[in-house]
Amino acid sequence: MNADLTMDLVARVTNGDRRALARLISLIENGAPDARPALAALHRLGGHAHVIGVTGSPGAGKSTLVTQLARVLRQRCQRVAIIAVDPTSPFTGGAILGDRIRMQDLAGDSNVYIRSMASRGSVGGLASTTRDVARALDAAHFDQIIIETVGAGQAEVEIVRAAQSIVVVTVPGMGDDIQALKAGILEIADVFCVNKADRPGADQAAAELRILLSLDAQRGPNDWRPPIVKTVAMQGSGVAELVDALAEHLAFLRQTGQIVARGERQARSEIQALLYQELMRRVDTRVGPDRLAALIAEVAARGSDPYAATDEILRTIGLP
Amino acid sequence: MNADLTMDLVARVTNGDRRALARLISLIENGAPDARPALAALHRLGGHAHVIGVTGSPGAGKSTLVTQLARVLRQRCQRVAIIAVDPTSPFTGGAILGDRIRMQDLAGDSNVYIRSMASRGSVGGLASTTRDVARALDAAHFDQIIIETVGAGQAEVEIVRAAQSIVVVTVPGMGDDIQALKAGILEIADVFCVNKADRPGADQAAAELRILLSLDAQRGPNDWRPPIVKTVAMQGSGVAELVDALAEHLAFLRQTGQIVARGERQARSEIQALLYQELMRRVDTRVGPDRLAALIAEVAARGSDPYAATDEILRTIGLP
Repeated sequence: MNADLTMDLVARVTNGDRRALARLISLIENGAPDARPALAALHRLGGHAHVIGVTGSPGAGKSTLVTQLARVLRQRCQRVAIIAVDPTSPFTGGAILGDRIRMQDLAGDSNVYIRSMASRGSVGGLASTTRDVARALDAAHFDQIIIETVGAGQAEVEIVRAAQSIVVVTVPGMGDDIQALKAGILEIADVFCVNKADRPGADQAAAELRILLSLDAQRGPNDWRPPIVKTVAMQGSGVAELVDALAEHLAFLRQTGQIVARGERQARSEIQALLYQELMRRVDTRVGPDRLAALIAEVAARGSDPYAATDEILRTIGLP
Repeated sequence: MNADLTMDLVARVTNGDRRALARLISLIENGAPDARPALAALHRLGGHAHVIGVTGSPGAGKSTLVTQLARVLRQRCQRVAIIAVDPTSPFTGGAILGDRIRMQDLAGDSNVYIRSMASRGSVGGLASTTRDVARALDAAHFDQIIIETVGAGQAEVEIVRAAQSIVVVTVPGMGDDIQALKAGILEIADVFCVNKADRPGADQAAAELRILLSLDAQRGPNDWRPPIVKTVAMQGSGVAELVDALAEHLAFLRQTGQIVARGERQARSEIQALLYQELMRRVDTRVGPDRLAALIAEVAARGSDPYAATDEILRTIGLP
């Protein structure tokens, strides 16, 4: 794709052309380097959307919750995009099924855009694809971009880190699970959602979360205290409160200037990922897969060591 | 440290000098580049130990189990080293407490070496430190090196990947937890251990694991089928069977040649980590933290984009 075509694509995406948007997202998903100049231009044009990440245990009802979130946001005249990401599977089966059900509600509304993405390679790759798709949607003037994941593992954490506000969804009666949440999910949550709150134990689950939060020594007195919102997504109850909590979080980030720090943290991690990608591309072209495999085999057979192999690779790619 | 001193340290470690070993491990933990020539030499001399990783949910009794493992291995005249790693905390408190209890049993035995390690920085850094400490212990002629983690998150998975045989420990009555295990732990397990098997539900837990394993489409008919061993570590029962299962796994790796593939996978990931580390060191020295921070701020403020920033960094470090 030449420069004129790229800039034409950018112009069409920012003018709200859905076909151009779909084409750009396909380019991003296929990892086409062609998309880069467009993404670079779109990055500079963007930064207006509120990017929301939704993660939590499988079975917590995230899909239904996100559909309801979109519905409430539409009532408030927001343009909404949903990126449903499944890092555990190369197939979009589950997510696509969810889409079909959502489509009955939201399809035909030109102010809603839904896209499912599944893993085609590394988690890092999927996280960077998600970030680029969010960038395209931002430039296409969606006000709210919701990144929804299927589970709550490390992969999901990496993916939702592209968001400004992260919702962690749990359900009553997951005692041990809340302990597990401590590991990596607790510290990324900006808003907790106890979904299926009509089940027994909802108040207890909320109380347990409140205790965990009060024990979190990393949050200072001026830091954001994640609110705990109870919802019954199937009936739509509590969803307006969740939307309010997300809006408050965004306002907090803006008032305190923390939105800048978040943007910089994301820029840093994106630049690091791009640097690593470029490094490995040079290893691939200059060292080549055969010599690399031979070096690795020598190290494994103890005829060489990782430091000597790394030195040779650095010399070969011109980084002495 | 000059080259003579380094080689002297190597000679002393391989001759079983515990003080030299402790000094080398401290150098590794402090991230001293001084340790590299020694580690390179030790890598070429090593490869004899069986490196075992033990991971699983907090509260599964891993510490007690590992102590019992060490005791049975000692009865079989094996020299045993334990690396207790806590990626969730910068403090070694918990692990040190565990050590003290273990010490009463195993301290004074010159064929046992126990070391606690806590997180001082990134997970990647801790995983690479663990790998290097295992390398030093291997060269110091320990037959069995057990890497024990406190929890079962992604960090723990990354750390125990340095092992040749990985034990995943679970306990009866963790229904939902076994579901969570599916996420990332199931595929790394070479042996499953249902500990506290005198509790109700032990057979059910084993049966659930068996079903999960039978559903694992990634394992072919000639692949290793992880055995499920029931133990009561507090009483020492089942531990001999666990030791047998680990020995069988090592024999399987050797017979099938998969031990070579595992070694190469580790060498590849270690070389990639070293390359990234060297790349970032050059960014630090040639671009410098100030210019890097300015580039990141520009990208976050949309005056630049990640691709342009990455290009400038690559040019500055001499990778055009």
